[in-house]
Amino acid sequence: MTEVSLHRPFPATAVERWDYETDVAVVGFGAAGACAAIEAADGGAAVMLFERNSGSGGASGLSGGEIYIGGGGGTDAQRAAGFTDTTEDFAAYLKAAGGPCVDDAKCDLYAREALDHYAWLKAQGVPYRGNYLPGKHIEPTDDSTLIWSGSEAAAPFCELAVPAPRGHVIQHSGWGGGRPLVDILERAARARGVEVIVDARAVALVQDGIRIVGLVVRIDNRDRFVRASKGVVLATGGFVMNEAMRRKYCPETFRINSPIGDQDDGTGINLGVGAGGEAIHMEQYFTTCPWTMPEPHANGVFVNVAGQRFINEDCYHGRVSRCALDQPGGKVFLLLDSAHFSQPLDMAGITIAGTGATWDEVESELEMPEGTLSATMAFYNRHATEGNDPLFGKQAPILTPLDRAPFVALELNFQTSYFSFFTLGGLRTSIDGEVLDRSDRPVRGLYAAGRCTSGLPAWGHGYSSGMSLADCTFFGRRAGKKAADG
Amino acid sequence: MTEVSLHRPFPATAVERWDYETDVAVVGFGAAGACAAIEAADGGAAVMLFERNSGSGGASGLSGGEIYIGGGGGTDAQRAAGFTDTTEDFAAYLKAAGGPCVDDAKCDLYAREALDHYAWLKAQGVPYRGNYLPGKHIEPTDDSTLIWSGSEAAAPFCELAVPAPRGHVIQHSGWGGGRPLVDILERAARARGVEVIVDARAVALVQDGIRIVGLVVRIDNRDRFVRASKGVVLATGGFVMNEAMRRKYCPETFRINSPIGDQDDGTGINLGVGAGGEAIHMEQYFTTCPWTMPEPHANGVFVNVAGQRFINEDCYHGRVSRCALDQPGGKVFLLLDSAHFSQPLDMAGITIAGTGATWDEVESELEMPEGTLSATMAFYNRHATEGNDPLFGKQAPILTPLDRAPFVALELNFQTSYFSFFTLGGLRTSIDGEVLDRSDRPVRGLYAAGRCTSGLPAWGHGYSSGMSLADCTFFGRRAGKKAADG
Repeated sequence: MTEVSLHRPFPATAVERWDYETDVAVVGFGAAGACAAIEAADGGAAVMLFERNSGSGGASGLSGGEIYIGGGGGTDAQRAAGFTDTTEDFAAYLKAAGGPCVDDAKCDLYAREALDHYAWLKAQGVPYRGNYLPGKHIEPTDDSTLIWSGSEAAAPFCELAVPAPRGHVIQHSGWGGGRPLVDILERAARARGVEVIVDARAVALVQDGIRIVGLVVRIDNRDRFVRASKGVVLATGGFVMNEAMRRKYCPETFRINSPIGDQDDGTGINLGVGAGGEAIHMEQYFTTCPWTMPEPHANGVFVNVAGQRFINEDCYHGRVSRCALDQPGGKVFLLLDSAHFSQPLDMAGITIAGTGATWDEVESELEMPEGTLSATMAFYNRHATEGNDPLFGKQAPILTPLDRAPFVALELNFQTSYFSFFTLGGLRTSIDGEVLDRSDRPVRGLYAAGRCTSGLPAWGHGYSSGMSLADCTFFGRRAGKKAADG
Repeated sequence: MTEVSLHRPFPATAVERWDYETDVAVVGFGAAGACAAIEAADGGAAVMLFERNSGSGGASGLSGGEIYIGGGGGTDAQRAAGFTDTTEDFAAYLKAAGGPCVDDAKCDLYAREALDHYAWLKAQGVPYRGNYLPGKHIEPTDDSTLIWSGSEAAAPFCELAVPAPRGHVIQHSGWGGGRPLVDILERAARARGVEVIVDARAVALVQDGIRIVGLVVRIDNRDRFVRASKGVVLATGGFVMNEAMRRKYCPETFRINSPIGDQDDGTGINLGVGAGGEAIHMEQYFTTCPWTMPEPHANGVFVNVAGQRFINEDCYHGRVSRCALDQPGGKVFLLLDSAHFSQPLDMAGITIAGTGATWDEVESELEMPEGTLSATMAFYNRHATEGNDPLFGKQAPILTPLDRAPFVALELNFQTSYFSFFTLGGLRTSIDGEVLDRSDRPVRGLYAAGRCTSGLPAWGHGYSSGMSLADCTFFGRRAGKKAADG
């Protein structure tokens, strides 16, 4: 009997019976899969969607429902708040955020079409209040729309692209807008006749020797064979929940302890690579420790174990956290004065490592050599008072002197603090969601989107909130459309 | 006609005629390929070796011919110099050097068997003078044997394993011992009847549906089919000369400009992955800028563009260089006083960025804010005078106060200085050189060694000189032996 494997396609000739037949089969019912299914249906294809859980959601459903949108002169929310966001600036920011891992073609395309994509999301029923919430927020606690969600206004990004806030959050009170976002997309998919099969885990692709023509799903512990005449769209998420894959491809993540995701075990990546695709930038990951809460903590200054600053703390909390992990010694310190300190969030696992009436005393409590942390803070305060950060370019309004005793050093420990993380590497795809092989040719009949691909959020140091859902929804749509077009 | 491709095996059923028949075919005539051929022949196999150049060498032939050896109480050279090197310390160092990418099983095995391997190398005719050359050297300029070639004596490595010098250099006057090393291995291979075919480039593997049974080589622009009944050993080097692969897998290397290698275009990696193997740690690379020459420069202090130190400068020059690349701003500075400065090597592309009668003047010439570099040097000198480096743990004898005016800052610029580099990622293999698939099963009939694999030198920040040739020669032997045993 032919083996069913994630790692190599099952031969179509060995399929005894097709349990299901459709045009396009979508695997995974997060935002990427939902958008792929919608577009494939709108493209005239019969669509079946297979989800291993008992309902939609995936990692998208656990997210804040924030989508990174801009360009074209700005969205309604951007323009109402006075931000003119050109396509060029938007593209430039996306590329800077992609760093060495950037896919220029994806950035350029998305920058050009993001406004249309925003209109499409609204047309599916995604509500946006349309207002702007100033300040730095991980997610709005009310139902606001537009927030600063990246490093746009911070060095060096602000020198590469005119800054604008681009995080667009679904109208939803409080955190967790990802769940209603997926619900709306699910309704849109079902309204188009997409047939959803839940509790169905993809275990193999089926190939007829030339192209992918279906897949094998395990339902009630039995293998069922799905014929998909136009192809398969993989939308199964990353591999943060697969320790063996992380060990091989992203071992740096073992320095931290809080993977976030749903069933992100790399299924789609394995299926795609097994069919001839290739996985790229597999070492990249997003991480953040929620150090900006309570909000006054955003005014803090970070130092490493040598008492040195290493980042302009006004950039995105995830970029600060990722750069913190580049520091030696297994931990960094967030320095605060009495004007800005409050008790850290319990869940953050951030502890008080030292206090003092002067920075010298804090330095001494941390057992740092004399003239390290204290010198760093004397230098920082002197320049901050004048509105400058000559070393890292941190800017107002959080370029605040920390000079109100007593002082405190909070410890962000890589092993014991809450550094949440998920993986960014995945299948290499065209701008149409085609899975590409190592010769740059599409694997026929195979498409992918979301975190089982490497997309807009390609580089851990450049990630900004909303980039992954932007990538999932926009390139999910492209993949579904391309699959339907054949 | 069936396509000949690096990316998928050619079906044996489509082979019209075998142009060559052998038991074991080895691809690539550097140190790894030579050692594989020798052991396969000693294992009783008929062996053919295919090399795309007109003669042996590969990247090994361009190297210093230095092999990282220790453990078991020490080699003759280590013991004569008073170093007792336990297997445990040797293994601990190898593991620390592998960092997050470490392959524990390879480290443990090599640590246990390195003395036997050293004896084997001598038995092949590799000469060692047997003496110890103190000091820090990139390669001996005379024919000395034993040098410090890594970060053994430097923090944090010295705390993880009792330090010992382990770089063993072939007896050869001056640099470039890799060429005579390969010559000796070539003679040993030819003496065993290994048939060498040069100007023959591997373009595909041949698979019979179950196992790799041969390969296709291009000779005089014609495809020739090689039957290898016991299997194929890939020993073709890394991918530093393949810009498209670097862009996809190791894009950080585009920040620097001087790839070193021979024909290292990823051929073996592509062949192996195409046959079902997997490539790991592809983002890892070795780099170094020859900043320790002239030798007094080893006493210098590095700062980044913020005027901060970032490393104990007494660790391996390549580790310092790799950590330099982690610093922001595109360059770092090597600070020297008049007691230690001489003109940098022309080839290094290291320039004088600033000078001064005081460190304050140097700071000012570099347009760094007042109280940055000057404070760093005041702190460093104060502690160095007392024999301490409380921040990074740099140790004597190069923990030298830099207090003899005038002072100079040399610029190591990532784009314009000579940062040589090569890739470390490659096929995942067992300790016997079997290419492993993504299910941890050997790809039958396929073996690999050297830099087309991820091996002992797995992590750029931990590389030490001699680790790659240790890996090539030792695991090359294992691969050849395993192939012959079938």
